[in-house]
Amino acid sequence: MIQELPAEVMVREVGPRDGLQAEDRWVDTADKIKLIDLLSKSGLKRIEATSFVHPKAIPQLRDAAETMGGIERAPGVRYEAIVPNVKGAERAVEAGMDGIGIFISATETHNRSNVRMSVAESLKHIRGIVETAAAAEIAVKGSVVVAFGCPYEGDVSSERIFRVIRGYRELGIRDILLGDTTGMGNPAQVHRTVRAILEEFPEVALTLHFHDTRGTGLANVLAGLEAGVLSYDASIGGLGGCPYAPGATGNIATEDLVYMLEEMGVRTGVDLDALLDCARFAATLVDHDLPGHVLKAGKRTRPAPRP
Amino acid sequence: MIQELPAEVMVREVGPRDGLQAEDRWVDTADKIKLIDLLSKSGLKRIEATSFVHPKAIPQLRDAAETMGGIERAPGVRYEAIVPNVKGAERAVEAGMDGIGIFISATETHNRSNVRMSVAESLKHIRGIVETAAAAEIAVKGSVVVAFGCPYEGDVSSERIFRVIRGYRELGIRDILLGDTTGMGNPAQVHRTVRAILEEFPEVALTLHFHDTRGTGLANVLAGLEAGVLSYDASIGGLGGCPYAPGATGNIATEDLVYMLEEMGVRTGVDLDALLDCARFAATLVDHDLPGHVLKAGKRTRPAPRP
Repeated sequence: MIQELPAEVMVREVGPRDGLQAEDRWVDTADKIKLIDLLSKSGLKRIEATSFVHPKAIPQLRDAAETMGGIERAPGVRYEAIVPNVKGAERAVEAGMDGIGIFISATETHNRSNVRMSVAESLKHIRGIVETAAAAEIAVKGSVVVAFGCPYEGDVSSERIFRVIRGYRELGIRDILLGDTTGMGNPAQVHRTVRAILEEFPEVALTLHFHDTRGTGLANVLAGLEAGVLSYDASIGGLGGCPYAPGATGNIATEDLVYMLEEMGVRTGVDLDALLDCARFAATLVDHDLPGHVLKAGKRTRPAPRP
Repeated sequence: MIQELPAEVMVREVGPRDGLQAEDRWVDTADKIKLIDLLSKSGLKRIEATSFVHPKAIPQLRDAAETMGGIERAPGVRYEAIVPNVKGAERAVEAGMDGIGIFISATETHNRSNVRMSVAESLKHIRGIVETAAAAEIAVKGSVVVAFGCPYEGDVSSERIFRVIRGYRELGIRDILLGDTTGMGNPAQVHRTVRAILEEFPEVALTLHFHDTRGTGLANVLAGLEAGVLSYDASIGGLGGCPYAPGATGNIATEDLVYMLEEMGVRTGVDLDALLDCARFAATLVDHDLPGHVLKAGKRTRPAPRP
């Protein structure tokens, strides 16, 4: 219930990865480094900094190793990266990542479109990645992509999500991320899905990753909080977008998320002013308006000049 | 609780009034008429169509009577208007409005800035308006402006809200609107405030009016639903804006609200496709992008072409 919100949650920044990979304009390595360093100074403790994928697949992040080599490691901050295969995992380990993320779609069509494998093939394929991470003693987070709706197949049943989580659990993965990859989730569904997952897998630690494509992003966070989830992804300024709908919004904006949480009395450990500085810098890296609201409106506590 | 959402809610359209009054570009009377007629055909049953204020105060709505004279009255639709004084109420009655809205701010500074009266003076002043409406047998809705935060004074106590509602109740007004005029509300506060009001005034029928200025609009609706409120304002396309922050978002977009509600299984009686047509027409009336999300992203059920 809304009266019983958690006292504290983790906000994980994914702008340098999920945000930038969807941006058309090339962002210089030096600017990526500057963005990550600004973010790590705002109080954020988890940053998905980049992705170790084939440079042809995501050209925007082809400088992943150089970026990681250039940043100033802030104490207490975990730098994470997405990897699609063992090669990527090896590069991530070499670059000194603190954790890696692997991903499988809940639906066959989306998984095939994303990584050219069936879900069953992906579930076999990730074993090598997990072994690479285990050998290097770094954490692995398993993502369920399109968990709240697939742009090709539509509705996604709990059983489809369970199948992927079961595969992750068999490899010992406890950190599970549910991705609303194209912003198809609604609060009632989020609440229902999370409760069903936590009943089936009470031992997992969930992270929710919402896109604000249809405006429900922060309402979905509220539903997640009420269902007991303590970790949320967001992208600074709302950096990124939706590849399926030009001009549509991508990830929820980190500063909007932190603003709402802190206003409700849910602590994030993040400094909103520092975050707004990050968002202003992020806005200089792209050719379009960023969708973050608090960036334009200012904080609630900034009083208007008296009439 | 989120598991116990209401089966049905009322969505009240305020775009032709609250939206247009904040738009710089002059909208022709014929276009206003067309917008209102499109809206009334979408299944919306309450439309705040205009405002009978002094033409110098809100030039954009100086053609209120002509607009109302030109529309096609849809059966079962209530056309409402805002009025600031007896003169406005008389014009509204003459124009055949089905209901009028009166408004008093929760804070002294905002009320003085808005209508050049103290709250106590406003509470006396509205008596004449209510008598005019009663004589014409039309309904009166009483708004509490800046109920969730004042841009000049900041936080607003429940007692400030109660004082205005008490004034309305003494005049027999049962329909009460709480306006988050500059988008300062958060879901925890909305839930707390609504519960406190319904405890103090269990007989009132509440409408919540949220602005999405800081991105919390639909999350605030979710909190309102959980607190038991069955009526919500919204503006087609998110028409309008925030006079205190150029470029910032104003009212929540009607199509986003209807989308979220219907996706959650809460019926609105509104046809989303018809509403999207309205939003596309509204977009032609202004010089800037409208903030509505579903307008850009499309409905959840529009599948992407298979890869």
